[in-house]
Amino acid sequence: MTGTRTQGTPIRSGLYDERSVTVEGRDAIRDADRVFAEFYTSRLVGTDLDALEAFHDTDIEVRDRAGVERNPDPVLAAAETASVVFLTAGDTMVSTTHADLRIRAEERGIDTHVVHGTTARTAASSLTGLQNYRFGKATTLPFETAHGGDGVPDSVVATIEDNRARDLHTPVYLDIKVDDPHWAESDDTYMTADRAARLLGAEFPDRLAVVVARAGSPDPLVVADTLANLATRDFGDPLHLLVIPAELHPIEDEALSAVAES
Amino acid sequence: MTGTRTQGTPIRSGLYDERSVTVEGRDAIRDADRVFAEFYTSRLVGTDLDALEAFHDTDIEVRDRAGVERNPDPVLAAAETASVVFLTAGDTMVSTTHADLRIRAEERGIDTHVVHGTTARTAASSLTGLQNYRFGKATTLPFETAHGGDGVPDSVVATIEDNRARDLHTPVYLDIKVDDPHWAESDDTYMTADRAARLLGAEFPDRLAVVVARAGSPDPLVVADTLANLATRDFGDPLHLLVIPAELHPIEDEALSAVAES
Repeated sequence: MTGTRTQGTPIRSGLYDERSVTVEGRDAIRDADRVFAEFYTSRLVGTDLDALEAFHDTDIEVRDRAGVERNPDPVLAAAETASVVFLTAGDTMVSTTHADLRIRAEERGIDTHVVHGTTARTAASSLTGLQNYRFGKATTLPFETAHGGDGVPDSVVATIEDNRARDLHTPVYLDIKVDDPHWAESDDTYMTADRAARLLGAEFPDRLAVVVARAGSPDPLVVADTLANLATRDFGDPLHLLVIPAELHPIEDEALSAVAES
Repeated sequence: MTGTRTQGTPIRSGLYDERSVTVEGRDAIRDADRVFAEFYTSRLVGTDLDALEAFHDTDIEVRDRAGVERNPDPVLAAAETASVVFLTAGDTMVSTTHADLRIRAEERGIDTHVVHGTTARTAASSLTGLQNYRFGKATTLPFETAHGGDGVPDSVVATIEDNRARDLHTPVYLDIKVDDPHWAESDDTYMTADRAARLLGAEFPDRLAVVVARAGSPDPLVVADTLANLATRDFGDPLHLLVIPAELHPIEDEALSAVAES
């Protein structure tokens, strides 16, 4: 098919494992000439490369950060002459790196098509019973040493306070250190919700928060309690996220009571 | 299996058609004893009941609003003694009616498990290149006569202005009239983006807006222009949504230029 410009398809593999992909995404993988992937912006915690390749009965060429951001040419060149799928975990296009890859493809005249996937953002709403329309701007809590300071960055505190002032919930995503040379020696790959609650609890000790662990997995966990109390708990395997709610509406209160541990 | 309480699974069927469901969702449908669905809170525009039943090789029992909200007992009673799946289009649990059904199930001792799906909210980000972390609170634009007034409700204007003041994009979902007795005689089932742009353009004529039509379909369309100009266009088949962006960051500007018509 040399000379025919065919589609590169960024695909979200979803939240958790090989079954989190949509049927449309699975079909695109099946029909592709080559399948690339990156797992440094997020991870599918419930699977690994071997399981993904076996499930889709295909070879997956994994690219690290440099292979996507500094040297994307082999991926783009492949997409100029063949049908290429580029797999990402979680929200594809949410990372600037995915948007940038798509821009470069379009600028080279390669048609792109985004296959949507499931996302932590909406999982945070649907698992907790907190109403989707009440979610404000999201924020990400970095590891203490990643932002060159102690505790919680001012921008995270400001987002939570600002949403609260507008009566909105704040989804707080937790830092992941993957394929980052700064962290090569560290065991702390995923920030846990108890660690996040300890950090945020220094700012808002008595604030109610909701932990969502393993969204998209067969055993997701939802726990609602004060940040001070959440800091003392263990929520098990990653990925974790937190929601700092505004005042709960009665139906949200009822829903949290029905679905959350406390 | 009478007497054994087994799981009722709310499933998002995704955005567009029968292939928008995740593999996990497809498997849950396959393994269920009974499959219910409602299509009054949203619609899978790219498919219909026959195609869904054929794709999943199962019978789907569709419930109208009354059958979910006023008389959910048959669904809940079925879930007490068998494995039941409840299908919804778009974001499941985003509608209060889904959260309410789940609360009632949990209160009856029925284990529930949410299978996440793809959502218009994240599609709005990934199709447009507008950065996900810059999206603020969402709003829904109702048909003029649905809110008992002319033009755009004050709450919609306030959400757009408030997000803008915080340098955040506003996703604007557009009204759908399905299974609503008020609208039985009307042809206007889905509000189109040009109609929405005309309404919003009365408030913000020169404001840049981005139309996303048919997210999740094989032919999604993204168009960026002023509201006044968008009001004169035709964006084809539903569903449509609008994003009212804050000031664009350079990479967003570049992405929109690469992926959007204007």
